[in-house]
Amino acid sequence: MDELDIDVVADVELDDPVLIEGLPGVGHVGSLVAEHLLEEFEAESTLVRRIYSTAFPPQVSVEDGVASLTCTEVYAVTETGGEDLLVFTGDHQAQHGDGHYMLAEAFLDVAESFDVSQCYALGGVPTGELIESYDVIGAVTDESMIDDLEDAGVEFREDEPAGGIVGVSGLLLGLGVRRGVDAACLMGETSGYLVDPKSARAVLSVLETRLGFDVEYDSLDERAEEMEAVMGKIREMESQASMDVPSDDDLRYIG
Amino acid sequence: MDELDIDVVADVELDDPVLIEGLPGVGHVGSLVAEHLLEEFEAESTLVRRIYSTAFPPQVSVEDGVASLTCTEVYAVTETGGEDLLVFTGDHQAQHGDGHYMLAEAFLDVAESFDVSQCYALGGVPTGELIESYDVIGAVTDESMIDDLEDAGVEFREDEPAGGIVGVSGLLLGLGVRRGVDAACLMGETSGYLVDPKSARAVLSVLETRLGFDVEYDSLDERAEEMEAVMGKIREMESQASMDVPSDDDLRYIG
Amino acid sequence: MDELDIDVVADVELDDPVLIEGLPGVGHVGSLVAEHLLEEFEAESTLVRRIYSTAFPPQVSVEDGVASLTCTEVYAVTETGGEDLLVFTGDHQAQHGDGHYMLAEAFLDVAESFDVSQCYALGGVPTGELIESYDVIGAVTDESMIDDLEDAGVEFREDEPAGGIVGVSGLLLGLGVRRGVDAACLMGETSGYLVDPKSARAVLSVLETRLGFDVEYDSLDERAEEMEAVMGKIREMESQASMDVPSDDDLRYIG
Amino acid sequence: MDELDIDVVADVELDDPVLIEGLPGVGHVGSLVAEHLLEEFEAESTLVRRIYSTAFPPQVSVEDGVASLTCTEVYAVTETGGEDLLVFTGDHQAQHGDGHYMLAEAFLDVAESFDVSQCYALGGVPTGELIESYDVIGAVTDESMIDDLEDAGVEFREDEPAGGIVGVSGLLLGLGVRRGVDAACLMGETSGYLVDPKSARAVLSVLETRLGFDVEYDSLDERAEEMEAVMGKIREMESQASMDVPSDDDLRYIG
Repeated sequence: MDELDIDVVADVELDDPVLIEGLPGVGHVGSLVAEHLLEEFEAESTLVRRIYSTAFPPQVSVEDGVASLTCTEVYAVTETGGEDLLVFTGDHQAQHGDGHYMLAEAFLDVAESFDVSQCYALGGVPTGELIESYDVIGAVTDESMIDDLEDAGVEFREDEPAGGIVGVSGLLLGLGVRRGVDAACLMGETSGYLVDPKSARAVLSVLETRLGFDVEYDSLDERAEEMEAVMGKIREMESQASMDVPSDDDLRYIG
Repeated sequence: MDELDIDVVADVELDDPVLIEGLPGVGHVGSLVAEHLLEEFEAESTLVRRIYSTAFPPQVSVEDGVASLTCTEVYAVTETGGEDLLVFTGDHQAQHGDGHYMLAEAFLDVAESFDVSQCYALGGVPTGELIESYDVIGAVTDESMIDDLEDAGVEFREDEPAGGIVGVSGLLLGLGVRRGVDAACLMGETSGYLVDPKSARAVLSVLETRLGFDVEYDSLDERAEEMEAVMGKIREMESQASMDVPSDDDLRYIG
Repeated sequence: MDELDIDVVADVELDDPVLIEGLPGVGHVGSLVAEHLLEEFEAESTLVRRIYSTAFPPQVSVEDGVASLTCTEVYAVTETGGEDLLVFTGDHQAQHGDGHYMLAEAFLDVAESFDVSQCYALGGVPTGELIESYDVIGAVTDESMIDDLEDAGVEFREDEPAGGIVGVSGLLLGLGVRRGVDAACLMGETSGYLVDPKSARAVLSVLETRLGFDVEYDSLDERAEEMEAVMGKIREMESQASMDVPSDDDLRYIG
Repeated sequence: MDELDIDVVADVELDDPVLIEGLPGVGHVGSLVAEHLLEEFEAESTLVRRIYSTAFPPQVSVEDGVASLTCTEVYAVTETGGEDLLVFTGDHQAQHGDGHYMLAEAFLDVAESFDVSQCYALGGVPTGELIESYDVIGAVTDESMIDDLEDAGVEFREDEPAGGIVGVSGLLLGLGVRRGVDAACLMGETSGYLVDPKSARAVLSVLETRLGFDVEYDSLDERAEEMEAVMGKIREMESQASMDVPSDDDLRYIG
């Protein structure tokens, strides 16, 4: 295998498709969104590419006893009711800095071969505390994109995310702009401690508005309820701990 | 030296040989099996290749004062009573992700030059607790291989191994399937805390059934008894600890 | 993107310019100096190059919602009242050893294309304790440069910095000398615990003397005062701690 | 700079020279020996090569204010009273596994250009405890070399060093044998906690016997006395600690 191998699984005609990148990251927000889209549009989705790389962890995943090599899968989604989509998803990010650059370029190469001119990199932004209201923070390659995204509910803040955007999501913007691709990163706020379906829902809602499709949220809401139960227990433990020494933080969380 | 150097030590005619990979890993299960096979078939084994790589640790091992560079050794084994074997063994895995990919490809290159069409990657799967009954978990490149392996006692479980298979064993499956090689990974259950000859015996027993040879287990049983003594001490310590506060775990182990 | 990409943003005629390198490091001394120069000479500065590399962290920074890929920016500064300058600045150093070498060579390539023959690499040298008097320690590529720098207040000490100079600043000297570039490293003493505008001022003062320009210090002094407040609190805490067991160290700091 | 740059500083005719490698490592035994040889034979030594590499740490050392890039220096030593020497010394080993392989090959390339046919890699082997008697452990590329080295006082032990030999010293043997170079590693026993001039002396004494030269030990003995003072304090502290609970270990050390 070369350090990068792109398998052509199928070819599908897409009409001015929009790239959606949802790899694992903070709160698994990006991958939850990508997986949910592929679940909801299962009948309309076709696996078109598999991207293998020696920059991925040297491992296979096993499902029902059958092993498959770590890769990024690319799905073409048509007849969404809105824009056609090209969805990038998988179980792993690259393992080192050079690999992140190589994979982001590979993603943009595939995007180019499908004439993608618009790109959404999805992720989570950690707040460090349990949250009630799920804002979506944005970053773009060009200032002119901000207004439309603000209309769809995205917030742009002067100094956020403070540490910049790390990994393939950041590079899709950083390298995309150098190729003339308009790219936005949508980051759902999330505590950062748990897989966060609610944050994923907030991001999905922005995509619906921007891209003109509608999806059901049942399965995502179910996962959210499971997580809610976990979070309930955490709050309970915090509440008991605060019996002895109540603090501002406890009041904010439980209030 | 190039990043990969394959020394041809000897050439042996093999009849449709089966690749056996047993490099160090969890519980040293894979390397115990490979070493035991080479011990039992000493008279029938020929060292045919040495695979050197800058991806191995930069070190030599020393035996009776003579140094030898870290490598993977490949032995051809004939007249086993069953299938001919091509056994890969050594003291080290690659040191980084890219190196794992490079070595797995090199193993498959050597296999191809001997017309191997079937491959067993051996390893251990950690259970995190001392165990009584040594199951062997399987993973395969193609669903069609499952029935025969189940007949030989291998278990296939929906979500195991949970984290996938890491290292050269996983990659022999992940990269093998891309070259048309049927590959299975046999993972002996093991606590993960100790070198585990009993787990190795369970894996060997599957290989006997599948590949039609018979081996003695005396030396392996001896090592198992030594380990049993160690485990006995561990149980004793647990038992004493549980005098004060008995727990479910203690009951399960000692019962 | 290649492992190194140098974007030509503009070209400016410079008269025998002096390279100033101020990347992040101990006490952020180097980057404070570079930023302050660009602030003070804003009207006289032109962004001429952006140096991108896969050796940088795989990330974008975000300002007012707009993302930009990690890079080193190179500014041409004219009409300083003294020498023309070529200032290298940015948010990140390379992530690994090989990358440091690659970037330092790239810096020297850019310098060569502007006919730079003199180079100042800026940084901090950690003393491990809060300090009152900010000396600037020097290192050079050729003994003949020492006298002039000593006249400008730089100190050369037998065994300092003890551990040598790590990162791009050190390599500009180590690789520069192999290309016939006279290079000096100016290291402001700093505790190493805090961003240190006072140490930056000491280094700037040497540059003023050597390169014949004058800059205002207001904004740097403001930052120094903010830091002074932080340091004041640290001293206070030390003072309280020393109530119980006064030590030589406390006396030295507080005196 | 390329990943490897070998500067030819001078060329010296050598008569069947012996390679001596003494880079930093356990107890700094190897580098102490190399430095002592160059000190004692100062008048007979000529710097012939500098080996630069991006695998070294990205740093310069500074002496009297003048910076020099990390490298391995190679000295030709003639008129020793015994064999001519080619001594490899420097402040750093490679920073990663691939780099160790690259540098060891570079060392052997230089050795070949001087028609070296015999190689001594020097180092320390950690015992983990303070020691009284300084044995020298050996490892060789070919069994036939053992007798002569045993005659010179080197010990060859069945399972030592247990973990093999890591770094450039090990690779000079592992890669040397593949090029037809006879190589031995001489490892002075050392606690592993301190720079150990006594261990260096033991190794030097073997080299004297094997290579037919004589050196003074005054400067090495001075350093040994300084270290002895440090070790004395350690013993004292151990002794005091053992007042309360004497143990076998204490008895062994203090006797």
